Amino acid sequence: MSRNLTLLTDFYELTMMQGYFKTKKNETVVFDAFYRKNPNDAAYSLSCGLQQVIEYINDLHFSKEDIDYLRSTGLFDDDFLEYLNVFKFTGDIYAIPEGTVVFPKEPLVKVIAPIMEAQLVETAILNIINHQSLIATKAARVVYAANGDGIMEFGLRRAQGPDAGIYGARAAVIGGCIATSNVLAGQLFDVPIKGTHAHSWIMSFPDEYTSFKKYAEFYPQACILLVDTYDTLKSGVPNAIKVFNEMFEAGIPLNFYGIRLDSGDLAYISKKARKMLDDAGFPDAIISASSDLDEYLIDSLKMQGAQITSWGVGTNLITSKDCPAFGGVYKLAAVMDEETKTFIPKIKLSENTEKITNPGNKTVYRVYDKDGMIKADLIAFADETYSEKDSLLLFDPIETWKKTFLRPGEYSLRQIMVQVFKQGECIYESPKVMDIQKYCKLELATLWDESKRLVNPHGIHVDLSKELFEVKNKLLDNYSKLDI
Amino acid sequence: MSRNLTLLTDFYELTMMQGYFKTKKNETVVFDAFYRKNPNDAAYSLSCGLQQVIEYINDLHFSKEDIDYLRSTGLFDDDFLEYLNVFKFTGDIYAIPEGTVVFPKEPLVKVIAPIMEAQLVETAILNIINHQSLIATKAARVVYAANGDGIMEFGLRRAQGPDAGIYGARAAVIGGCIATSNVLAGQLFDVPIKGTHAHSWIMSFPDEYTSFKKYAEFYPQACILLVDTYDTLKSGVPNAIKVFNEMFEAGIPLNFYGIRLDSGDLAYISKKARKMLDDAGFPDAIISASSDLDEYLIDSLKMQGAQITSWGVGTNLITSKDCPAFGGVYKLAAVMDEETKTFIPKIKLSENTEKITNPGNKTVYRVYDKDGMIKADLIAFADETYSEKDSLLLFDPIETWKKTFLRPGEYSLRQIMVQVFKQGECIYESPKVMDIQKYCKLELATLWDESKRLVNPHGIHVDLSKELFEVKNKLLDNYSKLDI
Repeated sequence: MSRNLTLLTDFYELTMMQGYFKTKKNETVVFDAFYRKNPNDAAYSLSCGLQQVIEYINDLHFSKEDIDYLRSTGLFDDDFLEYLNVFKFTGDIYAIPEGTVVFPKEPLVKVIAPIMEAQLVETAILNIINHQSLIATKAARVVYAANGDGIMEFGLRRAQGPDAGIYGARAAVIGGCIATSNVLAGQLFDVPIKGTHAHSWIMSFPDEYTSFKKYAEFYPQACILLVDTYDTLKSGVPNAIKVFNEMFEAGIPLNFYGIRLDSGDLAYISKKARKMLDDAGFPDAIISASSDLDEYLIDSLKMQGAQITSWGVGTNLITSKDCPAFGGVYKLAAVMDEETKTFIPKIKLSENTEKITNPGNKTVYRVYDKDGMIKADLIAFADETYSEKDSLLLFDPIETWKKTFLRPGEYSLRQIMVQVFKQGECIYESPKVMDIQKYCKLELATLWDESKRLVNPHGIHVDLSKELFEVKNKLLDNYSKLDI
Repeated sequence: MSRNLTLLTDFYELTMMQGYFKTKKNETVVFDAFYRKNPNDAAYSLSCGLQQVIEYINDLHFSKEDIDYLRSTGLFDDDFLEYLNVFKFTGDIYAIPEGTVVFPKEPLVKVIAPIMEAQLVETAILNIINHQSLIATKAARVVYAANGDGIMEFGLRRAQGPDAGIYGARAAVIGGCIATSNVLAGQLFDVPIKGTHAHSWIMSFPDEYTSFKKYAEFYPQACILLVDTYDTLKSGVPNAIKVFNEMFEAGIPLNFYGIRLDSGDLAYISKKARKMLDDAGFPDAIISASSDLDEYLIDSLKMQGAQITSWGVGTNLITSKDCPAFGGVYKLAAVMDEETKTFIPKIKLSENTEKITNPGNKTVYRVYDKDGMIKADLIAFADETYSEKDSLLLFDPIETWKKTFLRPGEYSLRQIMVQVFKQGECIYESPKVMDIQKYCKLELATLWDESKRLVNPHGIHVDLSKELFEVKNKLLDNYSKLDI
């Protein structure tokens, strides 16, 4: 579904672009897309959306209609519009691959490009990465709460528009959902789709039993009956049992069968329904549920002994309802000195210390302990080199007395950013979505449960290299000396 | 941006469709898309998204790739896939026009079609209407809080994917925003776009003053300078004043100029900045702000006397952060008796009284008082007739003793649903977005402030016609007599 999203940008990116054009300041710069805080007070997030960023960059071009539209605003001059006519992204992009566990302050995407190009792509990169990282992270929480049960993404009707449904389903699967109800997402990303019937199916028949019987006859291979249209325990479950009995008696095997609960007290009803199904001789009948679920409710239902093993999660997952925005930002980190061809680090100040940026052209190392679990992350300049043969001193960039000294053999290192574009050409091939899901599962396995629990999880340190720390402090000192 | 969204549907719509196909039950049915509760405990919502529903219905067709994909799932038979190959929507659709004030339980969209067609379109209709109605409603709240100041929609980077940004901007403008930062939305919907520069513009120059000066030279016609990159009151505002002075001294008039605050205590800083600008001789310099704003914060800042008259609202508007889903549902309301060609009303029960549906083929009347303000809404069967020459008895459908008797001359009536599709053909032309905005403003003017205030607003009654009330109760009685 290639679309021209070139104008999917904030207007100020274009007014700034023209400003850069006119000052001939098309020097090479470094921008970082990063975020400051994990959603839901979690200890981690998942990076997601890179494939769509790649498609966006590959498709970038100003059509004649785009240029005519910009001309009509009266703010753009012909020379700039002529430049847009031949505009092409020529820069380098580095990114942390999709499905990777990530932490605040780390560049999820790094753009090194002439400033006009790097500025233009800000909005769309943030839009895509913010959305998909949000939903993948939420999905991982829901999957964690389900403790091995399958989670199905059922939220399309409540998603914030078609793309939110389509790419939200993609992100949810990457985060660990076993399937989506969204057929278009299934087609586009080759991910499993699931679904049986709605209340309307049942209501369109003269009675519930007939509707169940017809459904079972049509779909014996995937026969999950929705039992709450009239009265779950008095009508729905008994009618379902009657149909299961008749199907087995007729010699039609139901391989994957059971009921779906969509209202009422799911703990109570699921226990009663389980007993009814077991007593009727259907211990392998599945009980699935889908009623305003989220990670907390699933966790609570499991604690209460609810007899549900399959969960359809809609609104709260597809909108990340309790935290519907991932606060990714895109900040200038360095400007190339054209004479020396070296990057001059740039910093953005703020009264809020948390909002001060990390300057320079950077990369991210993941530090693992001997068990292969994440010990900390280390943000360093891209040209720094590290060897596992050396000792490594980690220290907290704010509370600098917090130090960890790692001897060779006590840790391993992995640089988690990869190059995606080189001089405007994509040099990275995205894995298939189901392969990203597998990778993501391995990534999540490198976090202790203490960092994955839903409430008050243990945080992971993101440290700065000594060199980066010193450059950052020097820049801060310089500003504090200015009489501003 | 026509896209084939035919597979933008839940998988169960297709399994049900095939079930209907095989039972030859393609009778004509009525489905209502309605919602149960206004977002944010508000007293009203705004309907929005109809134009995109129309485009979706007009574009509906199963491509060869779509059919191949469905075949690959193994659940669909050739005869059904052949039907999909020639599938076309042939039904009627009625809807409440975009920008209309609406209330819970009213059908925002009513589909009368063969059941296979009516079932297929459920998910996409809900997706589109839920999203845009949510954002239009949120925008109206933010605009209400700003009490005449202009609200600009600035949320694209935090929107849940490209469509959420594009159609969210459209809905925000319908709800009353004067402009959006989203260039693509500006191009697609012919709505005003706004924006100046980001921190990166300032950081890319050797100093703040130079960056401001350059910007003012390039854009004297729209010169709003972002003053918080280093220190708002010590550096940003003084540098802005210096540049304004130099521009006026150089004889370059700044028609639309001022500053933008993007961090810090907006009440305190805006008052200080206002005084600095006034003292410098720039009383007409605009102070705009854009820092995690929503309707409550804007209301609070205005109460505190903040000197801000232009507001850029991002994340909290484009995601409707405190209530990111509009709970629209799509329920079967009637099935046509093929012999008598009359609709048999259908009802969905629930232990939760609020979730019991209103049966039958219905329409909605708005009842106005003598001042032209909304008195109540009345849901009636579509074939009932009302005349303003008759008296009208309104009664609450749950607390039935609450009655209002209106004599001729004391009220006026307007049927608020319009026909949009007739036998598959669109017979409705959507107004332009800016015209919908104007209509919406008039609509909001029919609500008293008491129903628009942000907290604990006065609710509006949605009553049922006597005939509808009686049919509904009869259906409920019938179910309670069943031994289920």
